[in-house]
Amino acid sequence: MAQRLAIIGGDAGGMSAASIARRRDPDLEVVAYERGVHTSYSACGIPYYVAGLFEDAARLINRSPAKHRANGIDVRTESEVVAIDLAARTLVVRAGDEERVEGFDQLVVATGAEAAPPPVPGAEAIEPARTVQAGERLSAAIARGGGCAVVIGAGYIGLEMAEAFVSRGLNVTMIDQAPQVMGTLDADMAAHVQDAAECHGIRVVLGSGVEEVVTNDDGAPVEVRAGGVCYAADHVVIGTGAKPVVKLAEEAGLALGDSGALRVDDHQRCPGHDGVYAAGDCAESHHRLLDRAVNIQLGTHANKQGRIAGTNATGGDVRFPGIIGTAVSKICRHEVGRTGLSEREAHEAGIDVVSATIKDRTRAGYYPGAGPIWVKLVAEAATGRLLGGQIVGVEGAAKRIDVLATAVWTHLHVDELALLDLSYAPPFSAVYDPLLVAARATAKLL
Amino acid sequence: MAQRLAIIGGDAGGMSAASIARRRDPDLEVVAYERGVHTSYSACGIPYYVAGLFEDAARLINRSPAKHRANGIDVRTESEVVAIDLAARTLVVRAGDEERVEGFDQLVVATGAEAAPPPVPGAEAIEPARTVQAGERLSAAIARGGGCAVVIGAGYIGLEMAEAFVSRGLNVTMIDQAPQVMGTLDADMAAHVQDAAECHGIRVVLGSGVEEVVTNDDGAPVEVRAGGVCYAADHVVIGTGAKPVVKLAEEAGLALGDSGALRVDDHQRCPGHDGVYAAGDCAESHHRLLDRAVNIQLGTHANKQGRIAGTNATGGDVRFPGIIGTAVSKICRHEVGRTGLSEREAHEAGIDVVSATIKDRTRAGYYPGAGPIWVKLVAEAATGRLLGGQIVGVEGAAKRIDVLATAVWTHLHVDELALLDLSYAPPFSAVYDPLLVAARATAKLL
Repeated sequence: MAQRLAIIGGDAGGMSAASIARRRDPDLEVVAYERGVHTSYSACGIPYYVAGLFEDAARLINRSPAKHRANGIDVRTESEVVAIDLAARTLVVRAGDEERVEGFDQLVVATGAEAAPPPVPGAEAIEPARTVQAGERLSAAIARGGGCAVVIGAGYIGLEMAEAFVSRGLNVTMIDQAPQVMGTLDADMAAHVQDAAECHGIRVVLGSGVEEVVTNDDGAPVEVRAGGVCYAADHVVIGTGAKPVVKLAEEAGLALGDSGALRVDDHQRCPGHDGVYAAGDCAESHHRLLDRAVNIQLGTHANKQGRIAGTNATGGDVRFPGIIGTAVSKICRHEVGRTGLSEREAHEAGIDVVSATIKDRTRAGYYPGAGPIWVKLVAEAATGRLLGGQIVGVEGAAKRIDVLATAVWTHLHVDELALLDLSYAPPFSAVYDPLLVAARATAKLL
Repeated sequence: MAQRLAIIGGDAGGMSAASIARRRDPDLEVVAYERGVHTSYSACGIPYYVAGLFEDAARLINRSPAKHRANGIDVRTESEVVAIDLAARTLVVRAGDEERVEGFDQLVVATGAEAAPPPVPGAEAIEPARTVQAGERLSAAIARGGGCAVVIGAGYIGLEMAEAFVSRGLNVTMIDQAPQVMGTLDADMAAHVQDAAECHGIRVVLGSGVEEVVTNDDGAPVEVRAGGVCYAADHVVIGTGAKPVVKLAEEAGLALGDSGALRVDDHQRCPGHDGVYAAGDCAESHHRLLDRAVNIQLGTHANKQGRIAGTNATGGDVRFPGIIGTAVSKICRHEVGRTGLSEREAHEAGIDVVSATIKDRTRAGYYPGAGPIWVKLVAEAATGRLLGGQIVGVEGAAKRIDVLATAVWTHLHVDELALLDLSYAPPFSAVYDPLLVAARATAKLL
């Protein structure tokens, strides 16, 4: 009898697992349960859709249920798994008014994450802009009118949404209770991002906790109260982070880690449960520098982890090597990248570090279009090993973070980084790449 | 009595040595002899000046003799060193009609490289576009008129100059005897560069050796004959490479390596001659993958080597770690990067490799401005270790080569590269960065 691989969740982690399993084992029955109507869509692209950079929200969908089905994956949309019985190896699946019990041999839990709005009155009335349909509703609401928008949360999603609102011609206020934007950066680097947002016309209100989202009788926002001030708000987006969706798995007896996400080993296996895997935003990842499990919700991790879960669920033996906290974003005129540990994270982890920040230009001085780039490096004081980097700058700045990610990953020391054979041509940098300049500045402190 | 550090050559290598030596030892007398009138200028920027991207050729000068003098370096321009006596530790310096003998305690030879035109009639009449003044003369000649330009040599300098001529409104033919453009790339990747050049309006003639550059009585070019065909040529640039300037040093008894450049150890010392250093285009560099000395003339190496020579000449102890052949260029609509060994170079070195090429996009499909990027990776068959990479693609493509350079440098294997924590956001790539996609494709071949 054919084995049956069940996958809970039809986005990046789940469908990556389904796709690789399908290719590896033609005899396997692969069924994916998705409570929504879409599969494999890019939530990361929603701000750009809302901004109006493209017209058709369907372009956010990387692979539709029909395409997955054509590849031999039994995708069940609008089908929510409401219970897992790990001993009996069955699921209870709710579709419409009907509940059915279905069996599985292997299971991949890829239930993703959900918005974590601040616990204040009215916040629960704001629809999280996390799905294609929610993006469409938000865009349609903007088209219907209203001149003011408030974004709650100044992380990268908040910043991207604030920029999108500006693109749509709105007056935008972005509010965060933290003293800086982008908490994944150190405060000195975040200040450049704040500058970019403000130059783009976004009013940035920091150190100000939201007290209430005031809505009208239709549930539409009217204003946001924060720090005792009222901000008119025809549109509100909440970007205060998300939490892993784990209730179902937890009730079934799968273990959670300290991060609140599902615990997995380096093969994406749920410990103690043979043939049960978890991947993506609902699962933990091993942080190679902190040497502990964390929950960082990014599509890039979800895709890789799903692929590994699907490979191992079909007799493979591949390992997820962990993460180092690399991320990149485009915020108004600036690109922003970070990897490894920030100075603050290193301090919190009790690691003694040195750190240097340099300002340079993205091109040779005489080459048109040169603009500023700031690079901050963090190195272990005892060894000189590069532990992290942050980059803010104009076009061409951010993807340089991948060089630092590779250097962090491979335990490169800053004195070696300073002499690395990186490329040079006038359209791309001065003769010393900014990363080399930053490495030399950091090495001097050792 | 103060020690005296003499430096022969006032460009990247020489002035880097002078500057660091000056900072490290305030008591040292630092004198730099330059036969031209400028110091520390960017020859790499000349094509962009000729293209008209900026008006003032002086912007190519990174640091003038006056600025170096203000920093305490005794710069002697229009002063050519015509003989070195290593035993007596003296130089013969010619300035105007005068020759003087001057002493030194430490010596840095940074005589650079000079054009190596093909040995055909008329080629010697074409002034190499290697100095600020030559660039100015070429630009002025274009301004005076003439509709046709011929570029001899289809390497990166030939391509950059061809693009510059197109920017100035000329009909441009680029001729090379090789069967492909950019010999530092494998032929399959070079084909994309040729496409870009042709789409830009450059006529590319390959496999065609130049037979003669025909000039008029004033020495101005008229036509170029190649492969039996005559090409009208109001302007000619020769970009067939350069050879290290070593005659002076060789006559003094400094050893040359197999590459024809000056032999140095990893401290930039000329073996057997205490206190004598060489740096930059005239010197060899250790190639870390080939494990032998090569002569690759790039400003980035010259600056680093000069700095190391100047540090060691003042009691320091720093090592140049060698190179891996990283280079980048912008050619018409494409950016081009390469690092490590090409497939052809690996074969020539007797290394058994696997290689994969992928085509991807520089941004998420729905994000405006996405364009093609090709990535080719070369890995050692026996171990899976990444040995080299080549990238061609639209804006945002080329500097990714530095990620591969870091991976090659640190002996990363392609299967580990495929799961590396590289950054992702829709303005910069699909959810799998093209480098990860290429690494996975290569790992599959192992």
